[in-house]
Amino acid sequence: MSNKASESFPMNAGDGPNSYTQNSSYQRGGLNIVKEMIDEVISEKLDIDVLSSSELFSIADLGCSTGPNTFTVVQNIIDAVKLKFQSHSIEFQVFFNDHVSNDFNTLFKSLPPSRTYFAGGQPGSFHGRLFPKASLHFVHSSYALHWLSVVPNEVVNESSPAYNKGRIHYGNAAEEVIDAYSAQFAKDFEAFCKPGHKNFLVDMTETGLVSEAQLDSFNLPVYNASLEELRALTVKNGRFSIERMEPVFRYAPTAEMCTIHLRAGGMERVFSEHFGSEIMDEFFDRYAKNVAESSILNDLTEKDSAELFVLLKRKVID
Amino acid sequence: MSNKASESFPMNAGDGPNSYTQNSSYQRGGLNIVKEMIDEVISEKLDIDVLSSSELFSIADLGCSTGPNTFTVVQNIIDAVKLKFQSHSIEFQVFFNDHVSNDFNTLFKSLPPSRTYFAGGQPGSFHGRLFPKASLHFVHSSYALHWLSVVPNEVVNESSPAYNKGRIHYGNAAEEVIDAYSAQFAKDFEAFCKPGHKNFLVDMTETGLVSEAQLDSFNLPVYNASLEELRALTVKNGRFSIERMEPVFRYAPTAEMCTIHLRAGGMERVFSEHFGSEIMDEFFDRYAKNVAESSILNDLTEKDSAELFVLLKRKVID
Repeated sequence: MSNKASESFPMNAGDGPNSYTQNSSYQRGGLNIVKEMIDEVISEKLDIDVLSSSELFSIADLGCSTGPNTFTVVQNIIDAVKLKFQSHSIEFQVFFNDHVSNDFNTLFKSLPPSRTYFAGGQPGSFHGRLFPKASLHFVHSSYALHWLSVVPNEVVNESSPAYNKGRIHYGNAAEEVIDAYSAQFAKDFEAFCKPGHKNFLVDMTETGLVSEAQLDSFNLPVYNASLEELRALTVKNGRFSIERMEPVFRYAPTAEMCTIHLRAGGMERVFSEHFGSEIMDEFFDRYAKNVAESSILNDLTEKDSAELFVLLKRKVID
Repeated sequence: MSNKASESFPMNAGDGPNSYTQNSSYQRGGLNIVKEMIDEVISEKLDIDVLSSSELFSIADLGCSTGPNTFTVVQNIIDAVKLKFQSHSIEFQVFFNDHVSNDFNTLFKSLPPSRTYFAGGQPGSFHGRLFPKASLHFVHSSYALHWLSVVPNEVVNESSPAYNKGRIHYGNAAEEVIDAYSAQFAKDFEAFCKPGHKNFLVDMTETGLVSEAQLDSFNLPVYNASLEELRALTVKNGRFSIERMEPVFRYAPTAEMCTIHLRAGGMERVFSEHFGSEIMDEFFDRYAKNVAESSILNDLTEKDSAELFVLLKRKVID
């Protein structure tokens, strides 16, 4: 894959067997874990003067995909805000954001009929500006920040020391490749949250399903920042105070869960655009087998957790 | 067709040969005519104190469909507002509204890349509440208000005096049918904007393509209110002052234009849900022939114009 923006790789659309809508339980598991954390931080950290005289509370979910998790988390936030501001009659407006190529039709059709908020979709990359000044009270983002806006240029440039020949990601790659990803992440301020991608594609070049040239030119647009890296970037950015930042340890998924999670969660589009949609079933079958045969899932410990719970508070509204 | 809400009948999706995106030139013609009117009323009628301290100007287009006309009209409005408030640096936020079943994916992919506003989609029927209190500065709606929220109950009830046997609309129907439509319109506050629908479906029952039972149970969920009717309803409603209300006279389209306009503009979905998608090509071919053979398009005069330009101004924000 070239250094194309991740704009083109939304979660799998619709509600079929490989869709994100039907395969978002891994992410939901994570949301359940952080629900209490969200309740706590809204109760403790949200200023009552955040409400203007209009008594409108605006929420954005950046990287909402097609549901249903986004609806659960948005309802959690609203419930916590209502609990905090009991004496107020607040109206809630929610902006569901994802890339333009996200399946907003499915998202809108799945909106909970009993919702108590005004719902809209705000399409576009959250690496650019999406909203007017000072128009949001609470911004949520989950399982989205690890997508880089772009694969670093150097990684696909054959004459660069960071050229990532025969690999599709920075794991086990040259220092220059890691640096290029890290620098891109620093630009994008994103976090990557998955167990390592073993080099299973090499098997597929051997059977001729995937050419070596295809493999050499492909790189994943995701980066797994450490807590320390993210903290340093936040401090450097300067606009937010860090209210909470901690790892979220998760159960180890099975190889099968891990695979369907990746497939529905955007990776099918990433891989099929580069390698062709006709090999996707075999592709993910081999991936699942590869993960099952490795010890990677059994060996996971808390320090391997790439999922972080982070609460940032805007210092000044400018 | 039963008395199903028009929720289910958006413009034709996607960008294929029968799509609304490729067949919205009739509506665009109308927009060009009203552009000057919009410029004029914004210049004359928009209060400078409409802007709050945040300098945010929010626009909604109700019944936006999939583009491109909505982008043209929104840009017209923004240009006129900028001209009016030259000394201000205003940010613009635009909410594109249509039914949940509208093709928002196509709409979002067609958003002008060079736009100078924040764009979002707000899905849902404009017969219900869509936005928080006092959150909009300018609301536009074009070629949308004539869709009734529902076919009147009586019209499909065999034991009602308003049962519309053998007809699909209120033209040439019993007084009770017209009254039922008119009462529904009064509820929905809508206006219907098309030349009459001749009873061409009867031909299709004779060839067996359409059963008599199918024909008897079908009625169009659209109503053509007169200027006087709309004025009376607005006065009765009481929340708005009538700043402008006048007919917009249009060129007479050809039978072919008239047909593709109807087909892309929502009618294919209405008819195919009831009569089956497999007869739609023949259905619209026969319609075009029927219109061409009649004198209906040649006989149009200004008094037949069902297109109205209306500017309403909210009296009190409550």
